[in-house]
Amino acid sequence: MSSFTRPTLKLTHEGALKALAGAVAKAKELGVPQNITIVDDGGNLLAFVRMDGARLLSRETSMSKAITAASHRQPTSRLDPANELKLAIAAGGRLTNLEGGLPIVIDGQCIGAVGVGSGTGAQDVEVARAALAAIGAEDQKP
Amino acid sequence: MSSFTRPTLKLTHEGALKALAGAVAKAKELGVPQNITIVDDGGNLLAFVRMDGARLLSRETSMSKAITAASHRQPTSRLDPANELKLAIAAGGRLTNLEGGLPIVIDGQCIGAVGVGSGTGAQDVEVARAALAAIGAEDQKP
Amino acid sequence: MSSFTRPTLKLTHEGALKALAGAVAKAKELGVPQNITIVDDGGNLLAFVRMDGARLLSRETSMSKAITAASHRQPTSRLDPANELKLAIAAGGRLTNLEGGLPIVIDGQCIGAVGVGSGTGAQDVEVARAALAAIGAEDQKP
Amino acid sequence: MSSFTRPTLKLTHEGALKALAGAVAKAKELGVPQNITIVDDGGNLLAFVRMDGARLLSRETSMSKAITAASHRQPTSRLDPANELKLAIAAGGRLTNLEGGLPIVIDGQCIGAVGVGSGTGAQDVEVARAALAAIGAEDQKP
Repeated sequence: MSSFTRPTLKLTHEGALKALAGAVAKAKELGVPQNITIVDDGGNLLAFVRMDGARLLSRETSMSKAITAASHRQPTSRLDPANELKLAIAAGGRLTNLEGGLPIVIDGQCIGAVGVGSGTGAQDVEVARAALAAIGAEDQKP
Repeated sequence: MSSFTRPTLKLTHEGALKALAGAVAKAKELGVPQNITIVDDGGNLLAFVRMDGARLLSRETSMSKAITAASHRQPTSRLDPANELKLAIAAGGRLTNLEGGLPIVIDGQCIGAVGVGSGTGAQDVEVARAALAAIGAEDQKP
Repeated sequence: MSSFTRPTLKLTHEGALKALAGAVAKAKELGVPQNITIVDDGGNLLAFVRMDGARLLSRETSMSKAITAASHRQPTSRLDPANELKLAIAAGGRLTNLEGGLPIVIDGQCIGAVGVGSGTGAQDVEVARAALAAIGAEDQKP
Repeated sequence: MSSFTRPTLKLTHEGALKALAGAVAKAKELGVPQNITIVDDGGNLLAFVRMDGARLLSRETSMSKAITAASHRQPTSRLDPANELKLAIAAGGRLTNLEGGLPIVIDGQCIGAVGVGSGTGAQDVEVARAALAAIGAEDQKP
């Protein structure tokens, strides 16, 4: 192998769609329609669904949550609140400290993230965790 | 019913995900990974998937195709080529005349659209038609 | 390994800096200051340099070339000229058919791309090829 | 010399790359992968690297820090906290008071700046100071 490369893993689209389905099932169970975004480790969109009745603008918050969790490889809402607005603005708006973004960690590697938006913070996290569970990714407890 | 309202139909997220699955199956059959975008009649994203190996920038072209088909309630690529760039620019970039965007018409109403991008124009159209077939929407022959 | 992942390679930052250095050396040899952009396979910036005297706006063209080559996993300037403007607009401006963007292929995998801008098309390609050569990536002949 | 001109100094690209290398070496020593941005006195990008494992969104914060330090010709984080968000928004988002941006001052002139992002504020500053040291620029003590 070239010394200028390092091996890594990518989330497949089948995995992304399965994670989406797991999140949708949990959102139905909770009775809360959601926007659910799955991104790869580069923050690029892999899969998305907006459920019937989900809030339109929460699509963007779900994307920001997913991109932030992929970038930082940790759940959103762990930044120091004293810096969260400064960081959000300096990063061009995508970096968010809202609850509901979780990294997708499989075999010890962060291969993407899920972001959920349209419910309460706690509901968003619960639905995101269901996405992780559907594909056997490491749980991310609040 | 108020005289100030008119009844309409909306595509459900289950329908959008089923259309997505139909498109994915066809793309696999063709051996061409695709970006597949489903939007509602307001041009707002309902569902999306980027298949393993699909071209990254074609995500945006698939979205432009879907939004254009929903807006004009007809397949993309039917605009007069003499005007297509002027229209694209004047519309802010989203209006495209590239092949691969089809309206989703059910019970005579356009309730959204599908846009496909990463293959040839003909492949994109074939995959978009498979999305329509999966939910019993009117076929849109080239 | 999880069935929801696929193995892949990433370009290291040392590789990206070495590619940058190879491109700078070639540009000096040609006597043409250049903007040189290296992106990963997700189109995200890995390394960049603007040489003394390089054209300021060519930074953006070098980025568009790199992102396009990474997205399409082939040299830029291979799109059908009849579609190139439509594609550029529909993709939000980043997709370009200008010469000077080459994919970085190592061990048969596209792990990123280099984009060069500020010279003639032929000079840009020559400098981009020097970047590839510096890290033992597959040559991309025009 | 025309009375309508004033002499100034510019940071060369070789200087920018050397500063980058100094920062990378320090970041490795600290064990913290970083995004490192060098801009000229006009706030325009001169050189950049994202180290393996650095946070993706911190690319933008490193740029905001560099542009702010070049603009104000002083380290970031010296603005009155009471005004920092108002200033950030009014300036279009690039003006930041986050730690990690330092002006590059040589022969008494500010010829650019370095911005670092992905570590703690203190780590970011330490890596930025290493960039200054590598090219004999004035140290900027916290």
